[in-house]
Formats: sequence, structure tokens, C-alpha cells
Amino acid sequence: MLKVTLLGTGGTMPLKTRWLSSCLLAFNGHAVLIDCGEGTQIAMKLSGQRFKSVDVICISHFHADHISGLPGFLLTMSNESRTEPVTIFGPKGIESTVRSLCVIAPNLPFALRFVEYTPDAEIRLEEMVLRAFPLVHSVRCIGFCAELLRAGRFDMEKAQKHQVPMRLWKHLQKNRIIEQDGVVYTPDMVLGEPRKGLKVTYCTDTRPTGSILRFAENADLFICEGMFGDDAKLPRAKEAGHMLFSEAAHLAADAGAVRLWLTHYSPSLTEPELYLQNAVSVFPPTELGFDGKTIDLQFP
Amino acid sequence: MLKVTLLGTGGTMPLKTRWLSSCLLAFNGHAVLIDCGEGTQIAMKLSGQRFKSVDVICISHFHADHISGLPGFLLTMSNESRTEPVTIFGPKGIESTVRSLCVIAPNLPFALRFVEYTPDAEIRLEEMVLRAFPLVHSVRCIGFCAELLRAGRFDMEKAQKHQVPMRLWKHLQKNRIIEQDGVVYTPDMVLGEPRKGLKVTYCTDTRPTGSILRFAENADLFICEGMFGDDAKLPRAKEAGHMLFSEAAHLAADAGAVRLWLTHYSPSLTEPELYLQNAVSVFPPTELGFDGKTIDLQFP
Repeated sequence: MLKVTLLGTGGTMPLKTRWLSSCLLAFNGHAVLIDCGEGTQIAMKLSGQRFKSVDVICISHFHADHISGLPGFLLTMSNESRTEPVTIFGPKGIESTVRSLCVIAPNLPFALRFVEYTPDAEIRLEEMVLRAFPLVHSVRCIGFCAELLRAGRFDMEKAQKHQVPMRLWKHLQKNRIIEQDGVVYTPDMVLGEPRKGLKVTYCTDTRPTGSILRFAENADLFICEGMFGDDAKLPRAKEAGHMLFSEAAHLAADAGAVRLWLTHYSPSLTEPELYLQNAVSVFPPTELGFDGKTIDLQFP
Repeated sequence: MLKVTLLGTGGTMPLKTRWLSSCLLAFNGHAVLIDCGEGTQIAMKLSGQRFKSVDVICISHFHADHISGLPGFLLTMSNESRTEPVTIFGPKGIESTVRSLCVIAPNLPFALRFVEYTPDAEIRLEEMVLRAFPLVHSVRCIGFCAELLRAGRFDMEKAQKHQVPMRLWKHLQKNRIIEQDGVVYTPDMVLGEPRKGLKVTYCTDTRPTGSILRFAENADLFICEGMFGDDAKLPRAKEAGHMLFSEAAHLAADAGAVRLWLTHYSPSLTEPELYLQNAVSVFPPTELGFDGKTIDLQFP
């Protein structure tokens, strides 16, 4: 199971009633935070989820509305007694930018590890694989794709064929590698072909681009920015490096996503529901994101 | 008139229902912000006051709960089309710390000017004089004293004695200096002795110390941290470099302040009203600060 929560859905600046865009992916005692603008720690508290479980923080780009809450978030993690290292995944320059911000969070009780985006960069967190892809914004910006892998079913014939001792079966099913009496036993010796897992793709801030299509392909949940609802705002969207609701919907349709959630609304977009139809007419399973919106994605 | 607003009254971390400690002093189209933790810009919006009018930002120290909201606050000021320079007044190292944080606010449309604390440092903003004084905390920390000066009454005898032309009287009364026909006319030529103005003193985070007494002397409003309400928490207060309600009250009484507002409550102090009596019994005109609490101080 993969629990996805939109902690906030606003762009540019936090509003009284709408936090800055941020998303939490939680599974099996672990969590991945995507973006951390000012106030994300409060949104996190409102969501009732634990800071301590956040192992990876993904930062899309260095505009303040996506990163300025990081020092406070890390300090609050330390107040929850986190001591295990935290990985921060972001565009080129992520380490120097975070170190610069952390001038006011100098003595964290856990190490920060940095992964800078490259096309091959990949973070493995238990059964989750995190990758990033380039977006098209006014500054260097990346989207994220999280896949929760699902092992194959137990295959007794295969286990017997590989002469795996019966007492090891349950351990190999838990994806462990075991060496015994000079023989190395691996999970694939007792498992069938991997089954379909879960895929969540998140992108903001950006214009539509081909990399989004590739990484959102067949996503169970595609979370995409919709800075403007009104199609008449296309020139403004192009100028600012953002998207219309309808553009996000076209991406979702073309990528074959299961569902689309819109997020990262302009502060001027006080009633996004007035424009939902612009997306639904293109891609019917579009939903408006809102602060606190959550879904428990289940394996098929 | 001097309008004082507590934008937030929390310490350490913002809560769902309590913003981080911050105070706005507004007078005659100008404003001074004291401290700017995460979320201060939202608290500012809730207060209904304009970002654009903030000419000076005072930072007590570099703990995140007092400064982490600064990049976002400055960016929101720029969204309100501020172009005039903004002065930032803080402890030694203020410029390098702010520059470091502003890695995510790189192209502000106004200049930042820095004033580093020294015993003689003083900022003059129209009729306001801002000074700072050293506190006793776990890191270098300063309190602030804002005095709104009030000129003397118009004195016709004095004006006639100095042979000031009648048409200049009203301009000199507005504190202007005028040169005419080779003669320099100054306000003191038409005004009596300066009258009592208004004084607000603000201090957090700190243990009680002599400098507070001196700078809070006869303050119209003394705003002081009260991290802990329960007197039994004295050892914890000493360890953390903070104060009890009762300690703040003793300072207010000894300084001869007119009134005391408590602020900067510990996140664990969910019901400060349970401990108000600990301060009121020492200094009766003590009031609990709360987010949005405001007063319009009038000249006597």
C-alpha cells in the first residue's frame, strides 16, 4: 500500500487557507517528501503524519516556495529524535543550496546525504525506486517518479528446482539474500515474475514536455501542476513556465495515467472548481487537489 | 500613534494554531518587523497589514524560529512592488546569515541594508528611534527598544524671538529644516521642549538580565518572553536560556513598565492562561500575548 497526501496545493506564496505545494508518499514505515516550502512542517502536523519517518526529501527546484521550509522541517525532524541519515534529492547545486539554507540549522542530529539529479540517478528505499526527470521552467527544475515494486508470487516448483531448503522460503519471500553452507540463496529462486506495482508521478513547476509523458506513462496517480484554470491564461502560463488545467489533462490522457490530481494553484486562483471542467473534458478522471487530500493506493 | 501587533506568540516551532513569535510596530505609514520565523508572512496576511510598509526588520538571533521566514517575507514584499531599500538590524553576522538564506531569494527589487548590533547602533526612521541591547541566551541574542519621539508644542514667543517668518511656522512644526535668504531655520526655533513620546521594548530569547531593566525602563509596553508558565520549570528555563512568566513580571515591575505582554510560549504550554496568575501576582498589569493581539498606543 502507498499512501499519498497532498500537504499543500498552493504556488508562489502560502495563503491563509492554502499551504505551499508539497506531497508525502508513505509506505511501510517510510516516507518521501516532495518539496518543502514555508509552512510545510505545519501542513505535515495537520496531516497527522510523523516527521521521523521521512527518509528522503525531493526538491524540484530552488524557488523559495518549494524549499524555504526545509531548515524548519529538518529541525522539527530532529525534535522527533531522528538520528538516521536523510537523503535530499534535487537538481544540480542541491547540496550547496541546502547547506546555505542550513546556516540556521547547524547541528542536526542526523547526516544529510545528497543525490544530485542526473538521468541515471536513482534512489532505492526498501521496495521503492525514486527517479527524476527534467522539466521546463524559468530555472532548472525536475519532476519525480516513485515506483513501489511488488515481488512475484511464491513458486514452489522453482524453489524445489533450485533446491532451496524449506526453512529459508519465508525469508527469501521477504526479499532477503541468505548465504548458508557456502550457497547463496536469492529471492528470485523462490519467486515468480515481479507483479505490477504502483507508480506515482509528480511534476511542478513546468510547461508540458516530453519527459513528463514518458515518466507518467501508466501512472496510477499523476500529480501535475495546474497554475491556471482558465484557458485564456495560456500566454501568462507560457511566460511564467507553468501550465493550464487543460494542458495537464492532455498530458495525463496521452501518458495513459489512471488518474490526475491538479495542484500548485496560482494565489489568484481562489476557486479552482470553476475551471475543473476544462480538464475533465479532456481527461475525465481528473480531480482537484486540495490541502490534505489523500489516497491509499493498493496493489492491483 | 503607534500600533503594536503580535503576529505570533510561539517559540521553537510553529503550531497549527500558534505562529512563531513576531511583532509589528506601525506608525504613520511606516512599519518595523521584529523577528521573522517560518510562517510570519501568513501571520502578516492574517493581520491585514501591508508588507510594503516594512522599512526595518529586526532579527533577535539566528535560531530558525526567529529568522527562517525571512526569504519568503522579502519575496512577498517584492510581490507588493516594494522598491525602497529595507534595513535589517541584527546581531553580529547578520549580513552573512541573511545573504546565505537569500540564496533562494536572489533578485529582490529592493536593496538590503544591514546594521549590525553595537552598543551605539541606532536606526532612525522618521520620528522613531530603534536601539538594541544584549540578552543572555544559548547564542548571541539582542532585544529591541523602539521610541516614538514627540516634538514640543508650538511656542510663538520662541518663533518671534528667532525672527522666523510666519509662513515657515507650519513647516518647522513638521520637523523640517528650511533654508531661506541665507538663513537656516530649524524646528527647535519654534518648538518647546520635546514631550513624552512612546516606548516599546521587546525581548526574546533570554534569561533575565540587567540590560533588559535599563531598556524597558518606563516602557509604555514591555513585551517579554515567557517560555514557561510554571515556576517549577525554573531549572529547565535556566538550562534553555529562557524565562518563566514570573521572571518576566519581576523585570516589568523593576523597570517601572506601564504594561507587560507575555509571548514566545513553549509548544508544550498549550494553556498559558493557567499560569497567568504567576505573573499578575508580581506585576498586575500583565497580559497574555496571543496571535493577533494589538494595541494602539496614544501619546499621553
